[in-house]
Amino acid sequence: MIAQPSISRVRVRYAETDQMGVVYYSNYFVWFEVGRTDLLRAGGWTYREMEADGVSLPVIEARCEYKLPARYDDDLEIRTTGTLVSPVRVAFSYEIVRPADAHTVATGQTVHASLDRSGRPCRLPDRVKGLLA
Amino acid sequence: MIAQPSISRVRVRYAETDQMGVVYYSNYFVWFEVGRTDLLRAGGWTYREMEADGVSLPVIEARCEYKLPARYDDDLEIRTTGTLVSPVRVAFSYEIVRPADAHTVATGQTVHASLDRSGRPCRLPDRVKGLLA
Amino acid sequence: MIAQPSISRVRVRYAETDQMGVVYYSNYFVWFEVGRTDLLRAGGWTYREMEADGVSLPVIEARCEYKLPARYDDDLEIRTTGTLVSPVRVAFSYEIVRPADAHTVATGQTVHASLDRSGRPCRLPDRVKGLLA
Amino acid sequence: MIAQPSISRVRVRYAETDQMGVVYYSNYFVWFEVGRTDLLRAGGWTYREMEADGVSLPVIEARCEYKLPARYDDDLEIRTTGTLVSPVRVAFSYEIVRPADAHTVATGQTVHASLDRSGRPCRLPDRVKGLLA
Repeated sequence: MIAQPSISRVRVRYAETDQMGVVYYSNYFVWFEVGRTDLLRAGGWTYREMEADGVSLPVIEARCEYKLPARYDDDLEIRTTGTLVSPVRVAFSYEIVRPADAHTVATGQTVHASLDRSGRPCRLPDRVKGLLA
Repeated sequence: MIAQPSISRVRVRYAETDQMGVVYYSNYFVWFEVGRTDLLRAGGWTYREMEADGVSLPVIEARCEYKLPARYDDDLEIRTTGTLVSPVRVAFSYEIVRPADAHTVATGQTVHASLDRSGRPCRLPDRVKGLLA
Repeated sequence: MIAQPSISRVRVRYAETDQMGVVYYSNYFVWFEVGRTDLLRAGGWTYREMEADGVSLPVIEARCEYKLPARYDDDLEIRTTGTLVSPVRVAFSYEIVRPADAHTVATGQTVHASLDRSGRPCRLPDRVKGLLA
Repeated sequence: MIAQPSISRVRVRYAETDQMGVVYYSNYFVWFEVGRTDLLRAGGWTYREMEADGVSLPVIEARCEYKLPARYDDDLEIRTTGTLVSPVRVAFSYEIVRPADAHTVATGQTVHASLDRSGRPCRLPDRVKGLLA
């Protein structure tokens, strides 16, 4: 069974463009964060609550492939799925699509450690595992 | 007659926080941009189209008063109104409110020159004037 | 007696530009932070140490006047001075100059509360007062 | 022969931290840009001039591995090297080191297309090739 991706929407801010007239490349990683935050929210335990409860998911790897430039005021859709990589690691995959022309603007992936309050690796909580593909 | 403010919504991104655990102060100005972009959009002529048509509104003054810290994942409302300052200048006022507790998080103002394609001051287009208070 | 301003240097990053081909307006506030961090550093007690020692200086007001656009790869000088506004408040003033043509690109001001570890207003430490004009 | 890496320095800005108390992950990509800008500058033809002369190097892939958290006010060194991937593509590799403890904070890579003024792939200019490993 393939879990449905979590869908988020962002509209490109002027702040996110650069002098090439397109979105600056690091901003896609901020949108990835929006995507995985929304995926976790769907499980009823927000990342904000998870951190308050003592579990954090710092990024240990991140990558992005840029297909087409996103532009100011574009309305974009972020499709996010998660996978368990090991008992203490989770990966999220992202596809950023521009619904206006159905083009994929970028794809990417982030890998996260699951850490407890003291900063030691801990098993990914079951409530999060239930959201993964 | 007082025009109704334009209402925008933003959810605070992790990227927008700093190590004090609250939103870093420069990010409020990015939200102000979201607010004025939506105000202009309501007139049916987006800022993206306006720029393509040869009129730009660079910021010449900006200020913000910080009332209460906004935090990660807060759902915030930006209330934006515009006023004509002179035939070639427009000001926007912003109030950022957290609907969850009805508190005002910040207020601010930006002043913009109206420039034509050659970078010279030009009269603010009538279509924009119609959106002002 | 007028204290000498603290001098900082920044080179404009591509990330800081927008599609107008100039620096996006919120980034000047980040440079202001660089300026006041360096002013405090000159007193031998960095802001990082100050926070670790339990005193923080959150921004309660910020403003900027934009004179000339800064551009990608510009080498800029930030001239920062501080003033005591009240026993529990400090203001910093900034002038951003482009040495290549001696033009002032922007000026601005930030006002900060002095807070103790519990988040209550506290007297600005004497070591900071010694750095003010 | 292995070319010497180009060395850049950045000091972590408060703006670059997040509420985990460390640098937010997308900011490393901004530092990568600082690194490759300085590498190109060493050849006497800045990226600013290169763009003005009609050649741009948009990012088509980017990745980062995070080893240790960088923190506010850390003084960091970016070591950048470039490699020709194909006649019309160049890759840059980055190592971010904290000289204070000699630890590697992050490593990464970006791949860039070489485009002419009309946006078509073009051979990487010889002046840039001379800077590559």
